[in-house]
Amino acid sequence: MTQHNADRTPVTVIGLGLMGQALAGAFLRDGHPTTVWNRTAAKAEPLVARGATLADSIGDAVAAGELVVVCLTDYDAVHKLLDPVGEALDGRVLVNLTSGTSAQARETAEWAARHGSAYLDGVILAAAPGIGTADAILVYSGPRPAFDLHEPTLRSLAAATTYLGEDHGLSALHDMAVLGVMWGILNGFLQGAALLGAAGVDPAGLVPLVRQGIGIVTDWLPGYAQQIDEGSYPALDATLDTHRAAMEHLARESESLGVNAELPRFIQALADRAVADGRGGDGYAAMIEQFRRPSGARP
Amino acid sequence: MTQHNADRTPVTVIGLGLMGQALAGAFLRDGHPTTVWNRTAAKAEPLVARGATLADSIGDAVAAGELVVVCLTDYDAVHKLLDPVGEALDGRVLVNLTSGTSAQARETAEWAARHGSAYLDGVILAAAPGIGTADAILVYSGPRPAFDLHEPTLRSLAAATTYLGEDHGLSALHDMAVLGVMWGILNGFLQGAALLGAAGVDPAGLVPLVRQGIGIVTDWLPGYAQQIDEGSYPALDATLDTHRAAMEHLARESESLGVNAELPRFIQALADRAVADGRGGDGYAAMIEQFRRPSGARP
Repeated sequence: MTQHNADRTPVTVIGLGLMGQALAGAFLRDGHPTTVWNRTAAKAEPLVARGATLADSIGDAVAAGELVVVCLTDYDAVHKLLDPVGEALDGRVLVNLTSGTSAQARETAEWAARHGSAYLDGVILAAAPGIGTADAILVYSGPRPAFDLHEPTLRSLAAATTYLGEDHGLSALHDMAVLGVMWGILNGFLQGAALLGAAGVDPAGLVPLVRQGIGIVTDWLPGYAQQIDEGSYPALDATLDTHRAAMEHLARESESLGVNAELPRFIQALADRAVADGRGGDGYAAMIEQFRRPSGARP
Repeated sequence: MTQHNADRTPVTVIGLGLMGQALAGAFLRDGHPTTVWNRTAAKAEPLVARGATLADSIGDAVAAGELVVVCLTDYDAVHKLLDPVGEALDGRVLVNLTSGTSAQARETAEWAARHGSAYLDGVILAAAPGIGTADAILVYSGPRPAFDLHEPTLRSLAAATTYLGEDHGLSALHDMAVLGVMWGILNGFLQGAALLGAAGVDPAGLVPLVRQGIGIVTDWLPGYAQQIDEGSYPALDATLDTHRAAMEHLARESESLGVNAELPRFIQALADRAVADGRGGDGYAAMIEQFRRPSGARP
């Protein structure tokens, strides 16, 4: 059993899915008095064996922590659980690590404020086993004083504990941006796996090559971010014309092998628009102008 | 000036763009007698200063190398240059590192065979400065004996020199798959940068978070490849239902901030189809079924 340290902030973790269990485990490891609650109490057992207290009710759970960390499936689950016990939040800091939109984060912040609670919206950039290690990044947005007060405690969850700003919506916006990149990788990989599969090739051999391509393009991103900030897009790697020609290759390969070509044709159409706007000789970052333009709008 | 070693295979490099210059430079560094040719001869000067021979004509260039490496803008450029000097290729191995489709690679292999030349189609997975270092990966497809004969020479370009198989089209197919992932990252990043920009946030702060997300998802790929191979898709990270709900968040965030939501809505529609096929409780790899299905086809 973990030794609790009297000088450590008492914390509560609500929601003991894989991630919630990892969060509570990291607090316990650092000696924080840790109260847990979950709809299905059995999930708390391994944590109780390590020294956590299983609260009898959600109200008791909230009352036990100075810092109350919630990690649930969605905001509906958050409100269903917390709305009845709002008064118990008075004077506490509520940290919500549940995925949602910036609007949901801001609305929950207002709800918490009405109950006298400071609210931090956070995003976990780690798989559950990475929690509490140097591999995890957790980002937070909301009132700076609440973050500063509990930063040492939150560092139990991730060495890289980053404050994004006062706007409660910032965490969700960053989360969405990161997820968009992750889906981009997954969809690109599945497109490639379908292509190779149609040619009778096992996708496992693709992994090291994709890893290499990912490493190359990841190193381009700081330069892209700078160009976006400066509004100037000289080609750093290849011109948009070159990218567009290669997209045509991917679409044609897909069509000729009888696999779905919608994704290649979709990204090619986006690039076509940028080329039609005179950006063919610029680098790929010039595509930001297409992403900025509301759906359906033309210049 | 680099010392040529008599036991090193004489090579020719045709096309001295950034990448061609890096290729020739790597051969020179390893002591290969290196002949170069470029439409604009001035680009050869730094290589000539390091010991390369600038050929007077493309025919002389081809005749000078046992291994002839071509790296041009596209296959049109390859054929325009090489078609008139096909006879000079007799008995030589032609390595084409120009980007194109698998059909173009196979067609060029047939053309080369008619001129008595073995043909290897290759793909460079590196930026130009990585050529000749441990960071580069080069893959080749075509006749195994030609690869085996020249593998020691090709290793001058990349420690990771990989043979994919006899089918000349395999390099292009792998290239397309890797590029699809790279565009996925770039488009996801630009979507996120547009989203943050609309909220008044500089995209530079997104880079470390995106890097983290990329690392997490890259580690998922071997498991995804295995599931695709086995045709079974238990959720490893999150279910497709969870992914789909988060895609809805990204689309709504984009719409409410007035940035383009076409990409989020497009990937959500793909996920919708998988959910409609009963895959909502499976992992993301189940999406392979959507990518395998020809555009417009429904089950």
